[in-house]
Amino acid sequence: MSLYWSSLVRRLTPYVPGEQPKLTNLVKLNTNENPYPPSPRVVEAIANEIAQDGQMLRLYPDPNADSLKDAVAVRHAAAGIARPQVFVGNGSDEVLAHVFAALLKHELPILFPDITYSFYPVYCGLYGIDFIAVPVDESFAICVDDYDRPNGGIIIANPNAPTGRALSLEAIERMLAANDRSVVVVDEAYVDFGAESAVALVNRYPNLLVVHTLSKSRSLAGLRVGYAVGHVQLIEALERVKNSFNSYPLDRLAIVGGSAALADDEHFHTVRQAIMASREQLRSALLGLGFEVAPSAANFIFVRHPRHDAAQIASALRQRGIIVRHFMLPRIDQHLRITIGTDEQCLALVAALRQIIELNVGRL
Amino acid sequence: MSLYWSSLVRRLTPYVPGEQPKLTNLVKLNTNENPYPPSPRVVEAIANEIAQDGQMLRLYPDPNADSLKDAVAVRHAAAGIARPQVFVGNGSDEVLAHVFAALLKHELPILFPDITYSFYPVYCGLYGIDFIAVPVDESFAICVDDYDRPNGGIIIANPNAPTGRALSLEAIERMLAANDRSVVVVDEAYVDFGAESAVALVNRYPNLLVVHTLSKSRSLAGLRVGYAVGHVQLIEALERVKNSFNSYPLDRLAIVGGSAALADDEHFHTVRQAIMASREQLRSALLGLGFEVAPSAANFIFVRHPRHDAAQIASALRQRGIIVRHFMLPRIDQHLRITIGTDEQCLALVAALRQIIELNVGRL
Repeated sequence: MSLYWSSLVRRLTPYVPGEQPKLTNLVKLNTNENPYPPSPRVVEAIANEIAQDGQMLRLYPDPNADSLKDAVAVRHAAAGIARPQVFVGNGSDEVLAHVFAALLKHELPILFPDITYSFYPVYCGLYGIDFIAVPVDESFAICVDDYDRPNGGIIIANPNAPTGRALSLEAIERMLAANDRSVVVVDEAYVDFGAESAVALVNRYPNLLVVHTLSKSRSLAGLRVGYAVGHVQLIEALERVKNSFNSYPLDRLAIVGGSAALADDEHFHTVRQAIMASREQLRSALLGLGFEVAPSAANFIFVRHPRHDAAQIASALRQRGIIVRHFMLPRIDQHLRITIGTDEQCLALVAALRQIIELNVGRL
Repeated sequence: MSLYWSSLVRRLTPYVPGEQPKLTNLVKLNTNENPYPPSPRVVEAIANEIAQDGQMLRLYPDPNADSLKDAVAVRHAAAGIARPQVFVGNGSDEVLAHVFAALLKHELPILFPDITYSFYPVYCGLYGIDFIAVPVDESFAICVDDYDRPNGGIIIANPNAPTGRALSLEAIERMLAANDRSVVVVDEAYVDFGAESAVALVNRYPNLLVVHTLSKSRSLAGLRVGYAVGHVQLIEALERVKNSFNSYPLDRLAIVGGSAALADDEHFHTVRQAIMASREQLRSALLGLGFEVAPSAANFIFVRHPRHDAAQIASALRQRGIIVRHFMLPRIDQHLRITIGTDEQCLALVAALRQIIELNVGRL
């Protein structure tokens, strides 16, 4: 603490991201990265942008990143999305930060599930937003009717994190219709792995904002590209905040790389289908080891073992060179979130877990 | 305006960046970009990071960007700077945004010159910070004694923008000593073109924060890398805000490219010396055309012609394919800010200005 700190800094509780270990020989299943490389077109686009001695790097990027917005609009052409309905940012985390400041700060508290992306309450702390954490049910399902109460906005992750459970489009539509005085944000970071996207509803609900990232299904966590799709007036609010914060949040390489990734449908479908297939195989194998494994529509599974302590399993996995995510949080401290890796990584994980269970590690 | 907008969005007046035209055959002297490409090591480092099919891009970057912080510390080794005294961000604009939230929001209004980087009042609007714009004198000099009054913080650009005028280190030290209860931020975006850096004072003044960018002297406007150097407690405040906003503001390519740029002293000195030499030549040529040209310690000059209207000169230059920056602001609406280009671009500019003056464009 220092006399130079603002009162804001004094009250903040920052987000703690999953570990990014500097060791390279770990099986890294802790931050939901994609085990497959991005589209070859991404590498090509970046190589092209640094050609001619990097001459282009000396120039500012397009502050509006119009080419990237156009690529997003084309990707969602079936939903009739046009460029002015698209906002882009430095990863969906930055997009979400601006969403909280621009669209979720009102008189009434906002609503989100008690078990969800743990950055949401951190944004509330940053912007002084009151919130109510609405409990998910015993099976971790979001109960739409529980959100039918006065609020300053709603944000849900669909599929939800870290549970992997998805809501149907019909349920989301019910939430939208019941809350037409406030913004409903659907954070679809994991939607490409098996859930229905609410982008299809954007042109019918002016209070709907859908947030996507290229970090997961496009294998670009290292490039920091996220976007939001919604009514032009919601997008304008985001642009106003963004242009009061940083004119150029996306560098030239992120703009061309992100655009190239969005344009490669074939690679996209191949990768996401491979991951969904691996997920179902892994789920069967873990059920076979006695784990409880909720159905997942994401690139991770959320598991617990009724007879072994989660933290001790995580620690024993780490000793074997495998890292998974354990949240020391109420209701889920006996669960582990495990990212779907390559089939080889999944096999290594299953073998290690079998050994850990046979050794009676963390027996409850 | 929309019922979904927060009160913050309603009151914002966003920053308007200099135009980034999509035409490629313009002589672009409007946003202080470097006319020379970055160090070849930058291109090499980025090419290396996208090797092996872009395999690394699928992984999150280091959220703390330690390798980049180390490169900053090495670059300022003469001032005895260590990694925990370094904060990095997505361009110095993002660094500054966090500075305003973390260190400049207090009970008392902050102080900055009436003529300076026009993003400062925008940040104040974003975070609800009161400010007093302290007039620079007739010659656009910042008068240090005018800042000797109760304040919640001070921010100055040195050299100042868009004037190009620099303060001496001795003057800055006077300001630091007189304001030990508040943070003094020195924004040194242009310092490498002829001013003295206050980084040398960091280990003696716990209230000093110095902000740098790689956009200008390192030719990396397109990569978005900025940093701040100061006491560990000031840096900790910035980290807390950053980690409540976006865990990974710097992508993998910005981290490796920025680090490589900072490590190439030879390229750095060659480029900045070329620009300073061109600046002095351009200054002489414009004095010869009857312009008033203040001495500049930056990679731009700030000029006016006593007999020709600035807006009309800018417009006539544009018709000739040359863009410069004209600010429609009190006290400086008869000035133009002109970025130092290559010698060839400077010659084209001088020829166009000679013609414009001979044609009596905008005669006052």
